[in-house]
Amino acid sequence: MAEESYTAPLLELLRALEAKDGSALLAAAGDAHYADLAGLYENLDDENRDFFIKTIGPELATDVIAELPDTLIEDALDHFKPAQLRVLLGNLSDDDRVDVFQVVSKEAQVRFFSLLGPRDLELTRNLLKYEEDSAGGRMTTHVGRLTADMTVKQAIAVLRRDKEDAETLARIFVVDAQGCLVGKIRLRDLAFSTWDTQIFDIMEAADETVLATSDQEEAARMLSKYDLVVLPVVDEFHHLLGVITHDDALEILQEESTEDIEKLSGIGGEQSEVSYLNTSVVLQFRRRVLWLVGLAFVSIASGYVMFRFSDLLGNAFILTLFLPMVVAAGGNSGGQAAAMVIRAMALGEISPGNALRIAWKEARTGIALGTTLGLCIGLAIAFILPQFQRETGGAFGFFQLAISVSVALTAQVFSSTVLGALLPIAADKFKLDPAVVSAPSLASMVDISGMLIYFSIVGAILHLH
Amino acid sequence: MAEESYTAPLLELLRALEAKDGSALLAAAGDAHYADLAGLYENLDDENRDFFIKTIGPELATDVIAELPDTLIEDALDHFKPAQLRVLLGNLSDDDRVDVFQVVSKEAQVRFFSLLGPRDLELTRNLLKYEEDSAGGRMTTHVGRLTADMTVKQAIAVLRRDKEDAETLARIFVVDAQGCLVGKIRLRDLAFSTWDTQIFDIMEAADETVLATSDQEEAARMLSKYDLVVLPVVDEFHHLLGVITHDDALEILQEESTEDIEKLSGIGGEQSEVSYLNTSVVLQFRRRVLWLVGLAFVSIASGYVMFRFSDLLGNAFILTLFLPMVVAAGGNSGGQAAAMVIRAMALGEISPGNALRIAWKEARTGIALGTTLGLCIGLAIAFILPQFQRETGGAFGFFQLAISVSVALTAQVFSSTVLGALLPIAADKFKLDPAVVSAPSLASMVDISGMLIYFSIVGAILHLH
Repeated sequence: MAEESYTAPLLELLRALEAKDGSALLAAAGDAHYADLAGLYENLDDENRDFFIKTIGPELATDVIAELPDTLIEDALDHFKPAQLRVLLGNLSDDDRVDVFQVVSKEAQVRFFSLLGPRDLELTRNLLKYEEDSAGGRMTTHVGRLTADMTVKQAIAVLRRDKEDAETLARIFVVDAQGCLVGKIRLRDLAFSTWDTQIFDIMEAADETVLATSDQEEAARMLSKYDLVVLPVVDEFHHLLGVITHDDALEILQEESTEDIEKLSGIGGEQSEVSYLNTSVVLQFRRRVLWLVGLAFVSIASGYVMFRFSDLLGNAFILTLFLPMVVAAGGNSGGQAAAMVIRAMALGEISPGNALRIAWKEARTGIALGTTLGLCIGLAIAFILPQFQRETGGAFGFFQLAISVSVALTAQVFSSTVLGALLPIAADKFKLDPAVVSAPSLASMVDISGMLIYFSIVGAILHLH
Repeated sequence: MAEESYTAPLLELLRALEAKDGSALLAAAGDAHYADLAGLYENLDDENRDFFIKTIGPELATDVIAELPDTLIEDALDHFKPAQLRVLLGNLSDDDRVDVFQVVSKEAQVRFFSLLGPRDLELTRNLLKYEEDSAGGRMTTHVGRLTADMTVKQAIAVLRRDKEDAETLARIFVVDAQGCLVGKIRLRDLAFSTWDTQIFDIMEAADETVLATSDQEEAARMLSKYDLVVLPVVDEFHHLLGVITHDDALEILQEESTEDIEKLSGIGGEQSEVSYLNTSVVLQFRRRVLWLVGLAFVSIASGYVMFRFSDLLGNAFILTLFLPMVVAAGGNSGGQAAAMVIRAMALGEISPGNALRIAWKEARTGIALGTTLGLCIGLAIAFILPQFQRETGGAFGFFQLAISVSVALTAQVFSSTVLGALLPIAADKFKLDPAVVSAPSLASMVDISGMLIYFSIVGAILHLH
């Protein structure tokens, strides 16, 4: 968070921190939003973190810790004594508590389990069964449950009992005796119906559901597509297990977009939950170095092609003038096609089953781009080249050279575009990590093909072999 | 949308479309979600679109049209007669109606205005004053408004009057006599309070607000950060104008991510709202060709550097073996740094004011990456090169070559990393389109520096000048 965006309570809080004034800090923290407090905590040094978290105490810290990046959670919890931790862990909502257990060390997990009450313990153990990135691993089980034979009066009595759990009321579902989902109801319909109305008469169908074992991204996409505030999570027998909420969807889709951008740029490993400026240089280094070294070795293949054709280059050094252009055009056009296809896959617009349609579309786009680029550059060469004419040694005319570069460009752009579009689909089909078709790795591949295409076509047209 | 994901009502609907069975189509459409109907409509040909939209009629079409991509809206509306259009435009929620007016032709705008009732006309004209991508341009004005001196009984009577507008009840705000925002209230608090409770006693502070003139992305980021379902939009006097909702936030942030990915890949122009497979080849071509041609001309500069150093190359063709590697390493490392910084800026984590901190972080990362890569490749050369030794003509030893390539790589990776991190910030600072630092344009720039660095360093260390 940039410092200029600090709100008034946060500025007061910073002053209190500096003065080590506990009661002023506590007052300011009470006025601030916990998301802001978490952002501030992230930017503090160890000493101030310690003073801050101990001063606000376990009650207020509960909400702050739920908003912290994964890597800071265990350290933040370690500031509390067991009795305080018991309060804090009990206050966490069930989905936040599961998140905590998923990110702390094994040792801390065992210690924290011993602090949970029997109900929370069972609930947490059950939720931990789901994969971290599945709908089940992300859901909260706090849901208002009614049955269809209740009256509005009975329903309100049931919900009022849970009133302290305010979140529940945005999501009231109707289940049968076996706990299977049969419908949903809005608080407004309860509030504006007469007391003896039957739930059955005012409930709506709950058509959109997601399986607990589904990927969290599927759940996020459904929330987005159907503009839902909550999406019920069910098992294969349609038992209502919990819900995923709109704020989960936002978080999941943002994470996914960041991941796509990083992969497209050849950045590996788990994305950091800590903000960019708080990520260590060591972590930045680790996430980038493998790709850089790997791609450098791939580039030796391009160099080898160039080296093999050095006789041809030696005959006509003018060829060096257009070599980088043909090679780079492949990386650029391939990268465009890959980005289009990878994003469309992320938005759920295309699936591997459409491979043929995509190939056909990109083949046409590629041929249009390739011929346009070839023509533009061919014409430009016809104007630029006469100045260099003396240096070609007169072995061939500049018209021939313009044609050969133009043909090579067309071939390179066409093949790179089709390759760039099909590689992500192939990767997905074979369950490979789409990262293997990141823009840099694609560029390194088409560098090699570009060298081969350029030297073969130019060599053949200019009879330089 | 991939065909395999069609739900049961959609499959029925497709059968009805094929059989041109109007009543079956109407029944199936009634069971389907309007978001699914819009997705289906997008995939139909013109004839089936016509039959579909006329059969479902203006009432059902209202929700479908609100979900359509911008480019299809005017055409869809043109299927209706003026009397039907009057119904349809009247049924649209105010924010969806403004969207329609923003995307249709001037001619259609005038025609549609004449069909609006006086209240809708004024409302739409007012909303059209805001920029399309501002918070005001995105908000809906349907908000439940109470005053602090009402009792719960009076409040419920006011809200019940607007009950047909169900959306209102998720967002109930308390305003003063001047219409300034003073607080918010939850339906649940109304429902569970006694009838004579004063609104003043149960309302909460509405701390998070956004100015109508703010960028829509700022609103989306606030909804995301504070996990809000609705965010009040106010003017500079704190008058409550409307709200932005959680589903707007999802849409805005997804659009923004797509834009970032496209820019990073050198894809220009407005992003298509139509899904990838429904975008025409012509549009795909238009959005990509300018970058490709422009970058190709930039690449001639790299070619020119190489051409200028051809004497040096001619003396030692072995140098071609490592040229593509040094050049590509700059594009790769610069692209990584640019992606990190651009994403962090999009997530609001860094601002131009942090330029120095970012430069320092990337300088350290760049030096670590550069020296690691230089060392790896230098060692590799020491093993690979002896095979090529005879071809260097004995002018220099492979140990010298390993050292010079290693130094060139370090310099290229370091300078590209810092450049890749700083260019997006500079662009932002000077209000330039960050697209000028897309990965391909960055790669083309560092191609040139890479050629210069390689030939200068290698030439100097090997005494080849």
